Amino acid sequence: MGERIPVAVLGATGTVGQRLLSLIDGHPGFEVRHLVASSRSAGLPYGEAVTWRLPGAPPAACAGLVVRAAGDPPPAGVGLALSCLDGSVARETEERYARAGIPVVSNASAHRMGADVPLVIPEVNADHLALLDAQGRRFPGRGAIACNPNCSTIGLVLALAPLHRAFGVEAIEVTTLQAASGAGYPGVPSLDLIDNVVPLIPGEEQKLVEEPAKILGRLVGEAIEPARLRVSAQCFRVPVSDGHTAAVSVRLGREVDGAEVRAAWEGFAAATAGPAGPALAIADQPDRPQPRLDRDTSGGMGVTVGRLRPCPVLHWRFVVLSHNTVRGAAGGALAVAEALRATGRLG
Amino acid sequence: MGERIPVAVLGATGTVGQRLLSLIDGHPGFEVRHLVASSRSAGLPYGEAVTWRLPGAPPAACAGLVVRAAGDPPPAGVGLALSCLDGSVARETEERYARAGIPVVSNASAHRMGADVPLVIPEVNADHLALLDAQGRRFPGRGAIACNPNCSTIGLVLALAPLHRAFGVEAIEVTTLQAASGAGYPGVPSLDLIDNVVPLIPGEEQKLVEEPAKILGRLVGEAIEPARLRVSAQCFRVPVSDGHTAAVSVRLGREVDGAEVRAAWEGFAAATAGPAGPALAIADQPDRPQPRLDRDTSGGMGVTVGRLRPCPVLHWRFVVLSHNTVRGAAGGALAVAEALRATGRLG
Amino acid sequence: MGERIPVAVLGATGTVGQRLLSLIDGHPGFEVRHLVASSRSAGLPYGEAVTWRLPGAPPAACAGLVVRAAGDPPPAGVGLALSCLDGSVARETEERYARAGIPVVSNASAHRMGADVPLVIPEVNADHLALLDAQGRRFPGRGAIACNPNCSTIGLVLALAPLHRAFGVEAIEVTTLQAASGAGYPGVPSLDLIDNVVPLIPGEEQKLVEEPAKILGRLVGEAIEPARLRVSAQCFRVPVSDGHTAAVSVRLGREVDGAEVRAAWEGFAAATAGPAGPALAIADQPDRPQPRLDRDTSGGMGVTVGRLRPCPVLHWRFVVLSHNTVRGAAGGALAVAEALRATGRLG
Amino acid sequence: MGERIPVAVLGATGTVGQRLLSLIDGHPGFEVRHLVASSRSAGLPYGEAVTWRLPGAPPAACAGLVVRAAGDPPPAGVGLALSCLDGSVARETEERYARAGIPVVSNASAHRMGADVPLVIPEVNADHLALLDAQGRRFPGRGAIACNPNCSTIGLVLALAPLHRAFGVEAIEVTTLQAASGAGYPGVPSLDLIDNVVPLIPGEEQKLVEEPAKILGRLVGEAIEPARLRVSAQCFRVPVSDGHTAAVSVRLGREVDGAEVRAAWEGFAAATAGPAGPALAIADQPDRPQPRLDRDTSGGMGVTVGRLRPCPVLHWRFVVLSHNTVRGAAGGALAVAEALRATGRLG
Repeated sequence: MGERIPVAVLGATGTVGQRLLSLIDGHPGFEVRHLVASSRSAGLPYGEAVTWRLPGAPPAACAGLVVRAAGDPPPAGVGLALSCLDGSVARETEERYARAGIPVVSNASAHRMGADVPLVIPEVNADHLALLDAQGRRFPGRGAIACNPNCSTIGLVLALAPLHRAFGVEAIEVTTLQAASGAGYPGVPSLDLIDNVVPLIPGEEQKLVEEPAKILGRLVGEAIEPARLRVSAQCFRVPVSDGHTAAVSVRLGREVDGAEVRAAWEGFAAATAGPAGPALAIADQPDRPQPRLDRDTSGGMGVTVGRLRPCPVLHWRFVVLSHNTVRGAAGGALAVAEALRATGRLG
Repeated sequence: MGERIPVAVLGATGTVGQRLLSLIDGHPGFEVRHLVASSRSAGLPYGEAVTWRLPGAPPAACAGLVVRAAGDPPPAGVGLALSCLDGSVARETEERYARAGIPVVSNASAHRMGADVPLVIPEVNADHLALLDAQGRRFPGRGAIACNPNCSTIGLVLALAPLHRAFGVEAIEVTTLQAASGAGYPGVPSLDLIDNVVPLIPGEEQKLVEEPAKILGRLVGEAIEPARLRVSAQCFRVPVSDGHTAAVSVRLGREVDGAEVRAAWEGFAAATAGPAGPALAIADQPDRPQPRLDRDTSGGMGVTVGRLRPCPVLHWRFVVLSHNTVRGAAGGALAVAEALRATGRLG
Repeated sequence: MGERIPVAVLGATGTVGQRLLSLIDGHPGFEVRHLVASSRSAGLPYGEAVTWRLPGAPPAACAGLVVRAAGDPPPAGVGLALSCLDGSVARETEERYARAGIPVVSNASAHRMGADVPLVIPEVNADHLALLDAQGRRFPGRGAIACNPNCSTIGLVLALAPLHRAFGVEAIEVTTLQAASGAGYPGVPSLDLIDNVVPLIPGEEQKLVEEPAKILGRLVGEAIEPARLRVSAQCFRVPVSDGHTAAVSVRLGREVDGAEVRAAWEGFAAATAGPAGPALAIADQPDRPQPRLDRDTSGGMGVTVGRLRPCPVLHWRFVVLSHNTVRGAAGGALAVAEALRATGRLG
Repeated sequence: MGERIPVAVLGATGTVGQRLLSLIDGHPGFEVRHLVASSRSAGLPYGEAVTWRLPGAPPAACAGLVVRAAGDPPPAGVGLALSCLDGSVARETEERYARAGIPVVSNASAHRMGADVPLVIPEVNADHLALLDAQGRRFPGRGAIACNPNCSTIGLVLALAPLHRAFGVEAIEVTTLQAASGAGYPGVPSLDLIDNVVPLIPGEEQKLVEEPAKILGRLVGEAIEPARLRVSAQCFRVPVSDGHTAAVSVRLGREVDGAEVRAAWEGFAAATAGPAGPALAIADQPDRPQPRLDRDTSGGMGVTVGRLRPCPVLHWRFVVLSHNTVRGAAGGALAVAEALRATGRLG
């Protein structure tokens, strides 16, 4: 792949930041050089600053890096910033990096719906990266902001995209059962998830309404024309560590039989199959997908669909499972970064 | 209430049977005289036969009763049989009791869809008990079989009934998050529910398709004309001990505003309010209802609705929570028995 | 009981405060008049200030009370302050109330080991309340501070006290499996307790080393001579909402057989039996006590012991279960308040 | 390693059998040729017979093998039988294989305490394999039975062995918090582990009393002289999928300081370090080890110790964490098989 691009990870101490450092460790195309977090962590070696919540310990290459404050000026020599910042500081910090001529891939929601910001799942809408050309008006040099969608959006859209291409998707009823890691750490109090589920994830349903239409939309000139699809969403938090499950009903552009749905998915699986596996897997057992058993499909980058059957109200019903901090966050952002690199948009 | 009716509890050692014995303990209208279970338990005092899974210990009045086998002839002097038997033996045993002239209220699914069998939630369709007159052709004396609906059906229908009466309900998208107790004991293996959810409860979705239409149907002569409503259901098992949660979207007979929906629910709540509370409660906090916090509403007999909001695909969306072994099983059956008593159908 | 004593609850919005308001609601001897919390809640009606985490809703009598700030001067006309404050502000606030002539019963750890502060489990060492006489040097009028022990201490000591009285207890090896509610709300992050246990509760083991010796000590003049017992403790946090379990091994002052141990416990149970049940219950089933099944024994005020058997290293081994927010906190503090009232130490 | 030895896996459909097939897949020294299970599964391809409970799917090399019944005669050409059978059928089946001249490594408890049966953790007592010479009296050719200890024993003994070698271990107080997978599938009902812990694992405590003394014992001629150590054990089942935690207090043969304990562990870690990591790891963070974060240390074959501190009753206290179905079962058995191979005891 040539030389490794020097990367700054913004929000490196959070759950998504930790996952990102694990995934990027040993990556042939990227090398973590700078770790950025809140001022509380700044000045400490990462190994001391972080409360590591993944199995094992922080990657050795990161443990000794001294954490920088998000409010500090961007370091020199950075070829890419991967942002896992919280919503509140993400907007300003990411813009500051972009204004310093640094390409930014963001997991935060702040810029996702910006008119000139591509919201990208590379297997679905890599062509939307062309929107970045318009950002030249805002940012100098290679400065740019590209976004990774919300964790619950990504799983849903990877399952819908093949159907949308083949038949059109008009309406979606979706109920999600989302993992605790989606709320970060400390995140959801354990008293809320012992012998319990919580029927509210603030802001999440609105993201499921807006983001799929943008991702599945068409690039027309320098703008995205959103897909015309109506989404009705109910999001639950459930006692699962990693892995968002979604119960989905869809109305398609026309009536199709189950074999056609399956063929669309299989075609997408074949087209996206890489060394770690496909971006979409079909579970044949009637009681799958399940978070604990299927979240690590294709190294966590594969979404699993199952239980396809006719829906008596719309057209088809099925269940989708995705690893929310890999496919839905850190791994998704890394995939966007790889797409940027592959299209020559990094140094 | 006059004299207490002598009751036989069929399937007394299971989780629903245990819950029923707890609820009926000290009841002014019923007195447990006989406990019936599988031949494995027969001959033992109940206190020895049962692996008690509820807090505390079996009611003292039951602990010493010697368990009878389900295969044995019905005991004499029984004024009511309450059946919590498993599907496999329920059909035959319940019929045998009815043929012996004993009124049976059943939690089992075996007879629910029988043309002459009332499927009753007393607050919703007590008038369907008139179907029992037709059973005179099958059973002698007071012999009869009335059924309690499935646990997931009951919560859903109690939330829908006021809307159906007021506006008509045409279509329903429902995703349930069901408690482990619904599968009895031992039931769901813990390996399936640690850090996991399971997207299949065999047979459950079909019950949600069939039962609501019957319960919300009209009694026409000696038959039920089912309501015309289409139901699309996805059932999950989640790591919750008691309390089924349902995410519901409905299309009504006409467009109504939220105040009208709420008024329909409030009217129903007022009409069903008893000493323990109403059969329907409206949660105003945005993160409710929750199983651990709301399942014991009205002593477990109250269903809680919340999160009412417009549905971009159908008309309205909301969340329903019910205690599956109280309202959805033992308590529901007891309510049917009380309705039979109130209408003079018991001895 | 005569007139109800007007009570101020300090720390009313936390999990223990909520539990206390539930328990005191309708109490014949106490009436909640003032609710005190952090300045963040001050000025709001309690119903708005609190994120209620118990089933149902706040007691109606409390919902409308306007919350006062802990930093404000104590209100007039208060006959008792029940403190559920966090450690950080407890020390200063409780002293301020005592200096205002108000008797304080505290759940906090700040004053527990004070030489003139009684650390009381009424069924065990009500005589230690005589220490309060010495507090006349520090506080005017009825001003005083009495403490409720740590939640894990209380269960352990209720099981040990009968053995200590009868045989002496010399050494204890204890491993606790503690509920999430012991850490308050938000408390333990759910990511720590999904598919996991945590082998550290900061400060907890030291409390198990110090507090039992004081509680089981002798009042000699105006001081407590601690019992000579060595305690080795390991505390775990486990995915349980309420109910601390402890695995205990003890070396007694002399070798006794199991019947003697049991007789000591039974004697204590008989001596402490009130309307709600005894303070100590013995579980005979080999797989009990269990948190979900036994925590509500005697309305949550009863500790359950089980699995008594010889210990190959010390003398006897057994398991203890107690409801940590009832017996171990709110209910325990209320019991201390009742003991103060019964001994004429309140107004 | 030369040619791969053809292996029969007995009890291949259970949770330990599944884990074993995963671990042995691609192993350079062994090749699974036969899968043996109950007669219920016999005749079916493994992929159909098994309810796979691990992430992903059964190894491709096994999915098509037709399952044989445990009651059938051993197949020809088997160089090793790895038994994950349940206790009830293990004894007879394993003996039948050994009588057919096949070396058997067993996870079952049936033969563990047999006088001529080595109970082996290779890093601790590989020399005990010499006991197999005495089995020539019972079994022809290479026929033999070697046992893997109980899952909770293995973690404990790996932590104790370095201390026993260096200082002697005289007495142990141990409380375990054991994962659900230790009970197999379906195993523990979820109702027992939602918001709950269970203070009994039938038979487990006795194994912790007997097995460590044998493993840490000395080979004297053709017999094991057990170590003189007293063990007091309390075993809990907790809501964890994989990973047994143990709280341990020990009395050593002499008083040593913490640095000496740590040095003993570090020496053992260094001596056992293989490509996947050491058999013993020391966690330095005060809240570790934790099951979810540490069970996969050294590919699941590494036991993690932490929280070393003085014990006020015995000498030292610490916490041990081990992966119960890898290190404690399938992986442990495979390690015994590798030790047999390395000592020329296989074909």
